[in-house]
Amino acid sequence: MSRDSKYDILFDKISFGPKTSRNRFWQTSHCTGYGSERPGTQAFFRGMKAEGGWGVVCTEFCSIHPESDEYPFTSARLWDEGDVKNLAKMCDEVHRHGSLAGVQLWYNGMHSPTAESREVPRGPSGFPSNVFPERTVYDSMADEDDIKAFINMYVLAAKRAEQAGFDVVEISGADSTLPLQFLEQRYNQRTDKYGGSLDNRARFYIELMGAVKRAVGDRLAVTTRYEIDTVNGDHRMQYHDEGIRFVQLMHAEGVCDLWSVKIGDYEEWGEDAGSSRFRKSNWMRPFIMDVKGVVGNIPVVSNGRFTSPDDMVDVIRSGQSDIIGAARPSIADPFLPKKIEEGRPEDIRECIGCNMCVSRMQQQALLYCTQNATAGEEYRRGWHPEKFEKTKKPCSVLIVGAGPAGMECAVVLGKRGYDVHLRDKSPDLGGHWKDVIRYPRCSEFARVITYRQIQLSKLKNVEVHLGINEMTTDDVLTYGADKVVIATGANWSTIGLGAEVHRPIAGADASLPNVLTPEQIMAGKDVPGRKVVVLDGDGHFTGIAMAELMADLGKEVTFVTNMHDIAAFSLFTMEMANNKRLLYSKKIKHMTNHWGHAYRDGKLQLFYLYKDTPELMEGADGKWGRRFGEELVEIDCDALVLVTSRKPNDKLYRELIARRGEWEQNDLSGVYRIGDCHAPRQLMNAIFDGHRMGREFDSANPQYPLPWIRERQIWGATTYPVLGDARPIVESI
Amino acid sequence: MSRDSKYDILFDKISFGPKTSRNRFWQTSHCTGYGSERPGTQAFFRGMKAEGGWGVVCTEFCSIHPESDEYPFTSARLWDEGDVKNLAKMCDEVHRHGSLAGVQLWYNGMHSPTAESREVPRGPSGFPSNVFPERTVYDSMADEDDIKAFINMYVLAAKRAEQAGFDVVEISGADSTLPLQFLEQRYNQRTDKYGGSLDNRARFYIELMGAVKRAVGDRLAVTTRYEIDTVNGDHRMQYHDEGIRFVQLMHAEGVCDLWSVKIGDYEEWGEDAGSSRFRKSNWMRPFIMDVKGVVGNIPVVSNGRFTSPDDMVDVIRSGQSDIIGAARPSIADPFLPKKIEEGRPEDIRECIGCNMCVSRMQQQALLYCTQNATAGEEYRRGWHPEKFEKTKKPCSVLIVGAGPAGMECAVVLGKRGYDVHLRDKSPDLGGHWKDVIRYPRCSEFARVITYRQIQLSKLKNVEVHLGINEMTTDDVLTYGADKVVIATGANWSTIGLGAEVHRPIAGADASLPNVLTPEQIMAGKDVPGRKVVVLDGDGHFTGIAMAELMADLGKEVTFVTNMHDIAAFSLFTMEMANNKRLLYSKKIKHMTNHWGHAYRDGKLQLFYLYKDTPELMEGADGKWGRRFGEELVEIDCDALVLVTSRKPNDKLYRELIARRGEWEQNDLSGVYRIGDCHAPRQLMNAIFDGHRMGREFDSANPQYPLPWIRERQIWGATTYPVLGDARPIVESI
Repeated sequence: MSRDSKYDILFDKISFGPKTSRNRFWQTSHCTGYGSERPGTQAFFRGMKAEGGWGVVCTEFCSIHPESDEYPFTSARLWDEGDVKNLAKMCDEVHRHGSLAGVQLWYNGMHSPTAESREVPRGPSGFPSNVFPERTVYDSMADEDDIKAFINMYVLAAKRAEQAGFDVVEISGADSTLPLQFLEQRYNQRTDKYGGSLDNRARFYIELMGAVKRAVGDRLAVTTRYEIDTVNGDHRMQYHDEGIRFVQLMHAEGVCDLWSVKIGDYEEWGEDAGSSRFRKSNWMRPFIMDVKGVVGNIPVVSNGRFTSPDDMVDVIRSGQSDIIGAARPSIADPFLPKKIEEGRPEDIRECIGCNMCVSRMQQQALLYCTQNATAGEEYRRGWHPEKFEKTKKPCSVLIVGAGPAGMECAVVLGKRGYDVHLRDKSPDLGGHWKDVIRYPRCSEFARVITYRQIQLSKLKNVEVHLGINEMTTDDVLTYGADKVVIATGANWSTIGLGAEVHRPIAGADASLPNVLTPEQIMAGKDVPGRKVVVLDGDGHFTGIAMAELMADLGKEVTFVTNMHDIAAFSLFTMEMANNKRLLYSKKIKHMTNHWGHAYRDGKLQLFYLYKDTPELMEGADGKWGRRFGEELVEIDCDALVLVTSRKPNDKLYRELIARRGEWEQNDLSGVYRIGDCHAPRQLMNAIFDGHRMGREFDSANPQYPLPWIRERQIWGATTYPVLGDARPIVESI
Repeated sequence: MSRDSKYDILFDKISFGPKTSRNRFWQTSHCTGYGSERPGTQAFFRGMKAEGGWGVVCTEFCSIHPESDEYPFTSARLWDEGDVKNLAKMCDEVHRHGSLAGVQLWYNGMHSPTAESREVPRGPSGFPSNVFPERTVYDSMADEDDIKAFINMYVLAAKRAEQAGFDVVEISGADSTLPLQFLEQRYNQRTDKYGGSLDNRARFYIELMGAVKRAVGDRLAVTTRYEIDTVNGDHRMQYHDEGIRFVQLMHAEGVCDLWSVKIGDYEEWGEDAGSSRFRKSNWMRPFIMDVKGVVGNIPVVSNGRFTSPDDMVDVIRSGQSDIIGAARPSIADPFLPKKIEEGRPEDIRECIGCNMCVSRMQQQALLYCTQNATAGEEYRRGWHPEKFEKTKKPCSVLIVGAGPAGMECAVVLGKRGYDVHLRDKSPDLGGHWKDVIRYPRCSEFARVITYRQIQLSKLKNVEVHLGINEMTTDDVLTYGADKVVIATGANWSTIGLGAEVHRPIAGADASLPNVLTPEQIMAGKDVPGRKVVVLDGDGHFTGIAMAELMADLGKEVTFVTNMHDIAAFSLFTMEMANNKRLLYSKKIKHMTNHWGHAYRDGKLQLFYLYKDTPELMEGADGKWGRRFGEELVEIDCDALVLVTSRKPNDKLYRELIARRGEWEQNDLSGVYRIGDCHAPRQLMNAIFDGHRMGREFDSANPQYPLPWIRERQIWGATTYPVLGDARPIVESI
C-alpha cells in the first residue's frame, strides 16, 4: 500500500544551512538516561528512529563542558575523545538509515549540580538555582573573560560534534540554559553590555550563534532550540513581548539556520513535555505561531505530541512550522513516519502522553516507554519494534486476561507465529485500563487499548474470546493449549491495606456503602454525603483523579496521603506543579504524611507519621526507643475513597502451579504469569512483562528474563581521560 | 612515635570462621555510588582504607541477582563475570595492604525499583514497598520453589564472591532485606512454615545462612549484618523481644561466624547512619549490648560513628562488642587506625556526622566527604589523603580568609612545601563556620575547624595571621606574595533574595530591627516580639536550626519554605523524618510551597507557588497564558528571619582581577579564588575547592580543575553479559 497523497507534504525535502533532510520528521532532542555513557543503547535507540523514517534524529541535551555537569542526571557529553567515540556510533547508526544526526549543545551552569565534575559553574549573575533549590547550586558571575570562555566551550564542542559525525548542532536556548539566562531578566541582572536592555541581554546568544556558525557553519547546520515563553507571566519571557522580539533580533543577524521553538522553562519542562492529562496535541501553537512570519524562509520546527498525520499536515499548511518535531511520539513509535509513508497510519503506536519516559529521566533512570516495550531495548536485548523472530517451536497458547499485559503478549506471540487464544470474561478488551481511561483527564490513555485491538484484528492466528465465563483451573487445564499465560490483573484493596504499616485500616471496609474503591466508583457505586476523603497510598494518578472526580461531583474533598507530597510520582512525570494548581483551583484540601488509623461514625481518624520523638530514650520500663505520640487527627468524612494498594488476582495461577502434576495428562507444558497478577506495578511494566514473555517464549523458562547487555566500565578497558591529560583550553588567561 | 599501650587491645588479632583479621577495625559495608560499575574508583577507595589500617574492608550493599536491582541507586552487584572482574580489582587492592575484603550479599526485592533489569522481585507476602511508596514497587509472593531459588541466588553470589577474591561474605539481614522481611511480622504474613511463629519467620534466614556456610564456609567467613530493632515500637522488631530472641535462635544453629548488629530499617536507615544533629557517638549501645552475652565467643561488630580511640577501647572492654565497625569515620579518615597505631590520634580527621556521604547516595550520585576531600578521588584524580607531592615550583602564597576553604588550601599548600600566609580579620579560625557550630545540634561540626587548626599548627611553613585589619586590594597587591588565593566567603542575603523569583522581598530589610539574618542572630541581634517566621530558601540545615533556636527562645515559630518539603535536602541526608519529628515536638508550624511577597506592619504576606490555573488559555486581551491567581496569605510576624540565599564576598577578588595590570610590578603572578566567595555552595564543596586548588597549584591555571578519569563504557570495549548468554540457573523448575 502506498501513502495517501494528502500526506505527501510531510515527505518533502527541506534544507537548513548546508544540510538537507529527506523529509519533515524531526526527532527533537530528548532525554534518555543513556547519554554518552551507554554508547550502544544510545546508538541503536536513535538509529531505530532513523530506520523508522525520522529525517533528523537528535541526541538528548549534550553538555559541552564539565562546568555544566548535570550528574546525577545523565546527559550526553562532548567533553573528550571518549565521548566522541561513543557518539560517533550513534551518528553511524543514524546515517546508515539515511538520516541526519543532530546534537543539542547545552551549558546550564547555574542549574548544574556538578555532582561528578565538582566544578564551579559560571552564569550571568551569580545566583542560586531555582531548579535544585535544596542542593545549594549556585553559579559564579561571569566576567567578560568568562563570556569569551563560554563561547570557546561551545565552539570546541561543536568541533567535537563534527568529529563524531553530527550534521546538525543545535544550541540550546531553552530549558533556562545559558543563552536564556542571559536573555531573561529573571536571571540577568548584569550592568555591562550583556545586561540591561533587551539588545544587551540578547548579545550573548547572538554572539554565540555567530561564533559557532563561523567555526562549523559551512559544513554543519547551526540551529537553536528556543524557549519563546516561560509561561510565568510578565516578569519572565512572553511570546508576544520579548519572546518574539528576540527572534526578530537574532534573525536579522543571519546566524541561525533553523528555529525549534517551545514554551516552558527548566523548572517546569513539563510545559514542553506536556502530559496528556494537562495538554492536548499542539497546545503550544498560539505561543509559537508568529515565529514563522518573522523568520521567513528559515525553517521552523514545532512540537506538540503529534501522532495524527492530518494534524501534521495542518501544522505545515497553516504556516505554523515547516517541520514536525517530536520526542515522545518518536519513542512510542519510531516507525511513525514510515507507517504514514506506507499508507498504514492505523498501525501507528500513538504516544499516550503519560510521561513515563519523562519520569525515567527524573528518577535518574533509563528511558522506557509504556506503549513501546522495545524502547531502550534495541541494543540491550536486541529487540526491533517492528520485527519479530518467527518461533522455531510453534504451539498453542492460551492467555487468560485481555488487559494490557495479556493483549501485548498476544500481539507479540501472534507476530511470532504462535497459535494464540486470548480470553477474558469482560465483553471488552483492556482489563482494568477500561476504568482508567474514564478517569478525568485520562482519555488519551485509551490508545493503549485501541492500538493493540487493531493489531490483534490483523493477526489471523490470534483468536480473541470476550465475554466468556470466568475460567476456572479445570477450564484451563482441559482447554487444550500447549502453554498458558495468566494475565488476570489486580484489584484495589478493599480494606485499606497500604505500604504505610502494611495493615488494614479499622472500619475501612469497601463492602460498606460509605467506603469505596476506584473500581467501585467507576462501576457506579453511589458516593454518599458531602465530605469525601481520598486516601492515597499509591502516589501516581489514580488518587488525584478520584479527588478531581469527587470535586466535579460537587463534593468537599480532602486528599490525604502518607507521602511527603500529593501524587508524589508526578514529581517525576513533571505534572506535580499542575497537579497542585489543579487541587488549588478545585478547592481540594490536602494533607501529607498522614495515614488512616480508623474510620467510624462519619469520622476518619488519621495519624501523623512523625508524631514520635526524634530522640531515642530510656522508658520507665528500662527499655530504649522513641517516646511514641498518641495523638490522632479526626476529620469529618461522609465517604472514604481507598486508593491504598492493589492486590494481585493470582488465584488461578497459583492453583495451576499447585496442580502441576495434572499438566502432563492434559498436554500442558508450561504455565506463566505476566502483568499485575504477577505483581501490581505501573502499566509500563505490565506491558513490558507481556512483551518480554512473548519475545522470550521459547527460552528454557520464559517466566524469567534472559540476560541483557550491561554497558559499563570493565576493569582494564581503555577509558578517557587519563591522568595527566591537559585541560582543554577555553580560557584565554 | 608509637601508640599508647592502652590502645593495644584495638590491634589484637581476631578470628571468625576460617579468617583472621589483623586488628579490630572493620570498615562496615557502606554505599558509595561506585558499585561494580566504576571498578577503579571502588578499588582504590577501599584499598586506601586497607592501607590506612582497617583490618576488614567491605563493599557497599551488593545485589546478588537482577531481581534485586536497586537502580537508579547504585549498588555493587555480583550478577556476572564482569562484576567478578571489577570487584576482583577491589579485593586485590585490599589484599595488597594486608586486609580482608568483605562483600555484603543483598536481596531486597520488595524495595527494589528494578529500573535497569525490569524484573519482578519476589518476597514473603506480595506487598507494596514503603521505601518507594510512589513508584509502585511491589514484590510477588514467593512460594516454596521461590524460596529455594532465593537460596540458590545467595549461594551462587557467594561463589562469585569467592572467585573475585573476597574473604568475608556478609548476608544482609538489615535494611529490611529479604531475611528481615521473612523475620518481621510487618512484612511476613505467610501461613506456611515460613510464616506465623517466630520460629517459622526465622526459618528462612537460618536456612540461608546454613546453605551459604555449607557452600563456602570452610574457605570464607560467613557473617551477617543484623537489624535488631527497627525503632518503630511494638509492631516491629524490638531488641528486647524478637530482636534478641532471633539472635538466640540463629546462634543455636551455629551458622553465623560473626554478627554485625545495628538498628533502624531501610525506610529510615538514618537511624543506623545517625547524623550528629540527632545521634551522639555509640547511640546504638543500649539496643545491641545484649547480643554479646548470647553469642559468647562469636565476634560481634558494633558501629556508632566512633572517632575516639578511648571510646573504642571502652566498647571492647565493656563487652559491648569485639570489633569496632565504622563507615563514616573510615570515609572521613581512611588512616584512622594507623594514626592510633602511630601514636598520633590528634591527626585523626574526625567524621562530623553531617551525612553528606549519605546524601550523595540518596541523590544517586557519587560518594564524597566534607572532611576528606580525597574520598572518591584516589583513582579518579590520583589523590592520597596522607601523601602530598612536593611542589617543584615553590613560592609564597597569601591566602585571604581562614574559613574552611582557606584553611584546607593552606594545609595542602603547606604539606606540599609552599611558603603560606593564611590571614583573616577574625581573631579565630573558621570563617562563617564559627557561627554554624553554635547552631542547635551542630556542635560536632566544630571538628572541621579543630582538625585543620591542629594540622596548621604542625606546619612550620604556614603562618597564620588572625585579627588583622581587613585586607584591601592595595594590601594584597603590595603584600609580597607570589600568588594569592582569595577565600573571603559569603554572607546571607539581607534583602530576602532567594532562588524563588530571584527578587528581593519588599520590606524584608535586615537593617530593620525586626528582620534578621542567621549571622545577625548568631552575633546577638535581639529578636523582637513573640511570633517569628523563618523564611527558608536554603533547604539544608540552617533554616531548621534557626527555627529550633527561636522555639528554644520561647517564640511561636512558623517555618515557611518555597520548597515542597521542610529542609528538603534532609531527605538526602536521611534526617528528614527526625527533622519532622523535631518540628512536631517543638510545636513549630510549617508551610511549604509558599514564598514572601512583602513584609510590613507586622504582617508577612506570602504567595502560594501554585495559585495560577493549570490550563493555558486565551485572555481578554487575546494573549495566551495561565490565569494568574492574585491571592496572598497574610500571617502575623513580629520578626522575620531570612534564610533565603547567600551572596559571595568577591569584591576583593574582582578588584584584583580588574587591576591585573599592576600584578607584574608587584611580582604577583596569580590570583585565584576558592570556596563560597567563588560560589556559595555546601561546605563539602568549599573544602574540596580549597583542597583541589592546593593539589593542582602548579598546573597551568589552577583556577580550573584538571581532567579526571571517567569510568564508563567506551564503544567497542568488551562488556558482560553478551546477548545469547544463558540466565544463571537458580530456579529448579
